[in-house]
Amino acid sequence: MIPTRSTSEIPGAPLPSPSHPIDAAPARRPGGRSAQVRRRVLDAVRDQLVEQGYDALSVDVVADRSGVHRTTVYRRWRDVGGLLADVLAEATGDDWSPPDTGSLEGDLVAVNREVHAALTGDPPITTALIAASFRSEQAGEALRLFWADRYARCSVIVRRAVERGEVPARTDARRLLVAATAPLYHEMVLLRTPAGPDLVERWAGDAATAARAGAFAAAGAADPMTDPG
Amino acid sequence: MIPTRSTSEIPGAPLPSPSHPIDAAPARRPGGRSAQVRRRVLDAVRDQLVEQGYDALSVDVVADRSGVHRTTVYRRWRDVGGLLADVLAEATGDDWSPPDTGSLEGDLVAVNREVHAALTGDPPITTALIAASFRSEQAGEALRLFWADRYARCSVIVRRAVERGEVPARTDARRLLVAATAPLYHEMVLLRTPAGPDLVERWAGDAATAARAGAFAAAGAADPMTDPG
Repeated sequence: MIPTRSTSEIPGAPLPSPSHPIDAAPARRPGGRSAQVRRRVLDAVRDQLVEQGYDALSVDVVADRSGVHRTTVYRRWRDVGGLLADVLAEATGDDWSPPDTGSLEGDLVAVNREVHAALTGDPPITTALIAASFRSEQAGEALRLFWADRYARCSVIVRRAVERGEVPARTDARRLLVAATAPLYHEMVLLRTPAGPDLVERWAGDAATAARAGAFAAAGAADPMTDPG
Repeated sequence: MIPTRSTSEIPGAPLPSPSHPIDAAPARRPGGRSAQVRRRVLDAVRDQLVEQGYDALSVDVVADRSGVHRTTVYRRWRDVGGLLADVLAEATGDDWSPPDTGSLEGDLVAVNREVHAALTGDPPITTALIAASFRSEQAGEALRLFWADRYARCSVIVRRAVERGEVPARTDARRLLVAATAPLYHEMVLLRTPAGPDLVERWAGDAATAARAGAFAAAGAADPMTDPG
């Protein structure tokens, strides 16, 4: 999943306008000079990627666009792969946690809404990063780590569902979470079939139904009501 | 799904060695001169894509590699997008149909095994085509049509399951088929997490469990045993 706080943000991290952190509030220097440089450079990467695509992405272009000296950008990020990896590392480093709505289906619907928002976001930074992951091995690995982190954070959804007795105790969290989210990614990214809000909810509901029926449970799974653990 | 007859084949179409159709059996002229030219050109596209990637793909390179005159290739396929679209159109034009194993789970496992074989194929033509679909709008559209055709053909799996009384009568075929296959594509293509044979079968089994429990059924779905329609 690629959660966002709004459709105009990149995965799990705010996407301020490129000029904001430096020009609008130079006195606060949030995070210091190094953090400001990083913010400017990563904003430039995202803007360039969304506006011109991967082919027009280069260290020189990012340096020019961000106003950061080329030497600095080369030293710290080395190449396009390093820049893309850091965009995703920044998103991984946020404090996102999945919504807690009180039910498994509600939680899965909420996550899928965030995925849908990310995949239909404007600017389309998420789809641009996915496309870039097929060009840069480093970006592919960073995206892999980003998603691994997101799915791990979401495992609390399954833990809560087990505690509520909604699903069998030995339900495999990752399998359930992938089942709920994969159809959405598959339809929208690979099959290129727009999914409306109803489908977003249906995929979540289908996965919840499956989980309640004992899918995703390891062999020998027991009912949490009769099995202590 | 991208079914293959073996791991060395492209989606649903045989992948002979580039020189075979012309050089090894020139007397037979299967399909005539035009079909031979197409075979040589599309073989060259696949070989070039797998060996050098999208960036090294051009009409001129394909013409040189296939031994077909550049003018012919430009006239018939126009550009790289046209070449990629025809590779996928050729795959769509085959006579593939999904396996009939006698049970919903068996059929889904068989389909997922074909998807897995395609995604781990050597040469990796399927993953190369997926990557190319993010570069060429025409290739993306052709891949969309290819998959739409494959999912439509697979709907017979769900029809048979309904007839056997395995799943509710109003089970949505596409939703069930996407649920069975999407996790495999998601794990292997986007999440870049290798899926072993056990996971390939588990995703199919999870989808079958979900379908039996009434997931993927339209609102008001009825049990086929008690509802005639």
